[in-house]
Amino acid sequence: MSRQSARTAAQRKADTLAKLTAPAADIWVASASGSGAGAAEAHLVPLSFGWVSDRIVLAVEAYSRTARNLVIGRRARLGLGPTRDVVMIDADVVAVLDAGTAPAGVADGYAAQADWDPRAAGPGYVYLVLSPTRIQAWREANELRGRTLMRDGQWFV
Amino acid sequence: MSRQSARTAAQRKADTLAKLTAPAADIWVASASGSGAGAAEAHLVPLSFGWVSDRIVLAVEAYSRTARNLVIGRRARLGLGPTRDVVMIDADVVAVLDAGTAPAGVADGYAAQADWDPRAAGPGYVYLVLSPTRIQAWREANELRGRTLMRDGQWFV
Repeated sequence: MSRQSARTAAQRKADTLAKLTAPAADIWVASASGSGAGAAEAHLVPLSFGWVSDRIVLAVEAYSRTARNLVIGRRARLGLGPTRDVVMIDADVVAVLDAGTAPAGVADGYAAQADWDPRAAGPGYVYLVLSPTRIQAWREANELRGRTLMRDGQWFV
Repeated sequence: MSRQSARTAAQRKADTLAKLTAPAADIWVASASGSGAGAAEAHLVPLSFGWVSDRIVLAVEAYSRTARNLVIGRRARLGLGPTRDVVMIDADVVAVLDAGTAPAGVADGYAAQADWDPRAAGPGYVYLVLSPTRIQAWREANELRGRTLMRDGQWFV
């Protein structure tokens, strides 16, 4: 375990925003199945994303497990970065938009940051627009204290 | 997107086993809450792990969300590696063992690979022993075909 000193909250926020705006990056997206037959199950998959107007935008096939889970469940938990320099995000789904008819701001913002454009991939894709409610960032055990940078959608710093 | 040629199944299995045996690595662990009040929710966290007798061994506090979810739900979805060189694992919980009384094979195997030993961390930790049922490995889009290396607990290669 490295023994770097813990970052300040301001530094963690700056590092978090750098991760959220990095081009052609992926984010881990965990979602839970609805309470149909049997127990709920977690799904997990890495996805391209865009950071557009303080929202995380994903693009997935409308019938993918992630889309089906989040259209019903409306909450996701996201992980960004390597496991020992992580940003953990709890987020609410605030919009599900057909890729063919989504507002240009969302679609262009996604395409500008991700390394593909679902509008060029044919029909069947949706944008999932997620609003972060809690953001935490830490590297090693010495950064667990002070890891919460946002709560109830409000940055602390 | 890189244009490396797709790996063979044998190479993907070798790369997967290298990831599963790497010392002091973390794995992303997604679990779903039980169907109590409200909708199920996914939890996601990076955790140290050991690969012991073809099982993934995690060590967590007994009252952590991951432990509570998996003791009830018995199924996890795990992600290993960077997002563009991933191993995705669906796994069943086959044992939950108190860290203080777990068999030495599990506890020593975990301590030998992870960078900490829950037996030295005081009471309250449990080992979660997970048996993979499906394993998939891919890097870029050209590796989506042939990504499934194990199904129903059996390696294809």
